[in-house]
Amino acid sequence: MDWLDQVKWDAQGLVPVIAQEHGTKDVLMFAWMNREALAATAARGQAVYYSRSRQRLWHKGEESGHFQQVHEMRLDCDADVVLLSVTQHGHDPSIACHTGRHSCFFQRLDTRAPAPQWQAVEPVLKDPESIYK
Amino acid sequence: MDWLDQVKWDAQGLVPVIAQEHGTKDVLMFAWMNREALAATAARGQAVYYSRSRQRLWHKGEESGHFQQVHEMRLDCDADVVLLSVTQHGHDPSIACHTGRHSCFFQRLDTRAPAPQWQAVEPVLKDPESIYK
Repeated sequence: MDWLDQVKWDAQGLVPVIAQEHGTKDVLMFAWMNREALAATAARGQAVYYSRSRQRLWHKGEESGHFQQVHEMRLDCDADVVLLSVTQHGHDPSIACHTGRHSCFFQRLDTRAPAPQWQAVEPVLKDPESIYK
Repeated sequence: MDWLDQVKWDAQGLVPVIAQEHGTKDVLMFAWMNREALAATAARGQAVYYSRSRQRLWHKGEESGHFQQVHEMRLDCDADVVLLSVTQHGHDPSIACHTGRHSCFFQRLDTRAPAPQWQAVEPVLKDPESIYK
């Protein structure tokens, strides 16, 4: 059975993908792939996602230069989620988020406040306007 | 604005959730939460997901005893994915997967084979039949 056929694609033909940094094990981002994107990722060794908003393949780094070199691809027990181990290229320290931050998961729930609230707790490493120009 | 209102729930009222182990930084599993599940997770400090197959709240560990203590909750840049930092209780070494493995992401793409294939590369730590009895 073809490895692409073993993935349980959802009703939109997509699978959720988690990108984890190889060195730090930080979770960098979450995105989606369709069959073509997953095949392209394996073929070129760099992460190629499917952009649901733009409805097309999205070679991560195509605009920012922040490519993701893929070391390993894993599939979960239900065959419906993919985990990538990546090296995030293009900036040191690495930037995976379009906001210019290291990781997309930069908002932490602060439960100490009078009411819980999401707080941005990671610095912007590079102005997004200078990333996407 | 209420922290639960800041989450961009999908058309089904759900948000994807990644559970990462606090100590090892291993990605343990991926699941979904609805508003009630996210509120319950924050309130009790243990992961409560929404089971799409059973269409009800699923307090992780309710059958297996493998509870997840939540240290931190994060929200991504688009406010549509949640990342949990958890301690996986109930077994040592920790078991998050219903197959009795440490992590749900135990299938690795082997690209060396004549054709690429997913290979189970992590051991079963406990027989699932003795976990769910």
